[in-house]
Amino acid sequence: MSKIRIGIAGYGNLGKGVELAVRQNDDMELVGVFTRRAPETVKLLTAGIPVYPIAEIEKYKDAVDVLIICGGSATDLPEQTPALAKLFNVIDSFDTHARIPEHFANVDAAAKANGHLAMISLGWDPGLFSLNRVYAESILRNGETYTFWGKGVSQGHSDAIRRVKGVKRGIQYTCPVQSAIDAVRSGSQPNLSTRDKHERVCYVVAEEGADKAQIENDIKTMKNYFDEYNTTVNFIDEETFDREHNTLPHGGFVIRSGKTGANLETNQTIEYSLKLGSNPEFTASVLAAYARALSRMAAEGQTGCKTAFDVAPGYLSPLSPEELRAHCL
Amino acid sequence: MSKIRIGIAGYGNLGKGVELAVRQNDDMELVGVFTRRAPETVKLLTAGIPVYPIAEIEKYKDAVDVLIICGGSATDLPEQTPALAKLFNVIDSFDTHARIPEHFANVDAAAKANGHLAMISLGWDPGLFSLNRVYAESILRNGETYTFWGKGVSQGHSDAIRRVKGVKRGIQYTCPVQSAIDAVRSGSQPNLSTRDKHERVCYVVAEEGADKAQIENDIKTMKNYFDEYNTTVNFIDEETFDREHNTLPHGGFVIRSGKTGANLETNQTIEYSLKLGSNPEFTASVLAAYARALSRMAAEGQTGCKTAFDVAPGYLSPLSPEELRAHCL
Repeated sequence: MSKIRIGIAGYGNLGKGVELAVRQNDDMELVGVFTRRAPETVKLLTAGIPVYPIAEIEKYKDAVDVLIICGGSATDLPEQTPALAKLFNVIDSFDTHARIPEHFANVDAAAKANGHLAMISLGWDPGLFSLNRVYAESILRNGETYTFWGKGVSQGHSDAIRRVKGVKRGIQYTCPVQSAIDAVRSGSQPNLSTRDKHERVCYVVAEEGADKAQIENDIKTMKNYFDEYNTTVNFIDEETFDREHNTLPHGGFVIRSGKTGANLETNQTIEYSLKLGSNPEFTASVLAAYARALSRMAAEGQTGCKTAFDVAPGYLSPLSPEELRAHCL
Repeated sequence: MSKIRIGIAGYGNLGKGVELAVRQNDDMELVGVFTRRAPETVKLLTAGIPVYPIAEIEKYKDAVDVLIICGGSATDLPEQTPALAKLFNVIDSFDTHARIPEHFANVDAAAKANGHLAMISLGWDPGLFSLNRVYAESILRNGETYTFWGKGVSQGHSDAIRRVKGVKRGIQYTCPVQSAIDAVRSGSQPNLSTRDKHERVCYVVAEEGADKAQIENDIKTMKNYFDEYNTTVNFIDEETFDREHNTLPHGGFVIRSGKTGANLETNQTIEYSLKLGSNPEFTASVLAAYARALSRMAAEGQTGCKTAFDVAPGYLSPLSPEELRAHCL
């Protein structure tokens, strides 16, 4: 069987992750990376893969089965995904929750009008966490669903720390509160806000001679970012910072605490959790699996826009339906 | 919108669970229970629901949208599901893993020939655990998947205990070994057999004057059941037994420990777990959600046999695709 020909649009952390994920799937091959930068300035991790200017992407429309769009949700994807869905079958990881219906409508129209299939908002949240919320809420009809994020790096909060006077380097981890997780697992269905469920842990390299007490106070009292959370600020030296804070871990928990029985007297708990050494590498692995699903569903003649809710799980697997039934049920 | 009309074939623990699950889904109604027993001897939990002899089930074929078959996998379902798929859209929880391909083929042929849709092997294992294995293995291509069961009652092992001389009452719980779970979560990908992962905990009421040391020895050395496991035998009085061992809890864990990155240097862990106060009530809740999916897929004209791998998650939810995208992604 011929391999699924993958293209990558955008080569940041996520694009690199997709490059690596394609290597782990022997039914896929990477045919090229498309970039806004000067192609000769982009060094891939893999020898022999061409880099093309994204302005010329239309030339390659018959060479790519699935284009994985690795831009940012704020400005790139709202433009790129509908435009590229006119030329390609596309996947993105659009994660601005409030704008998903609008993005879906734009991508759906562009894909349908051109006979293409698109999938949006894939990754782990939105994506796998969304799926698990829907499975769990469809099964346990009476109950509460709790999502915890972390331990993981929050880019927005890390940027905010770095704007504080006297801060040379800074990173912020969002951490779930263990006592809140324990309360949820107990079946007591507590009322918890996002801030009850999470605390913020910061690592800071101060500039020489900076007032550390002032930095700590400035961070902890920062409106909208830290003031309503339990926040810890740790000062470390630059060498430690470089050694211990150079990866992008993340993860989290989706817990559905439900009740069944004649008087809803029976506790039932469904829990899904991720512990990710690298957020972009994992997100990319999700995108690669959905690229397989997309190529199969497109071969069946499906067009328009889909989300994780529309994709039967068997499509993600390299195994055939017969193999899945025999070995995985 | 008219409600999904549910029928139940077989009224044991699982059938009772389905009766209760239908109550929790306001887009469903229970139209009747079909039994091999004399209908007047079967007391339902809900007033006003008719009980019919299963021998006359054909009369009701236009009154039921989805028939949930609640028989046992050993002898009931291999006969009942193909036979009833000629008359109804059907769902079962067939769980004899080795015989699933054969069962699938029989049900598929019967359903297709009669324009019906069937779903088999639904519940949590097979079912939700199977799904999670497939999602996780499709995403993390390099890695190991571990399934732990328990803490939960094993009917076969409980029966075995009760055959030991001097045992009046007995129950056996299969328990996952915490140190094995911890090793898996660490990312070390240990080699673990089923018996490395589980221990067996027994609660026994001895007959008066029985030799407890002998009972304990007989249980712990029982071939194929206990001899190769770490087994604990606890003697309790009958009152405690009745009070503390009268429910059917179960659960377990599916953990995928994977690696990503250029040199597979990044640990990534996906974990799915269930903690169930009642195994039959939970399994029934899964069947009810898939009954909703089945009624929608049948309305689209789909026929033949499906498993959890073939059902897009959105079909399980009472929410519309638009609502799911707006609120659950």
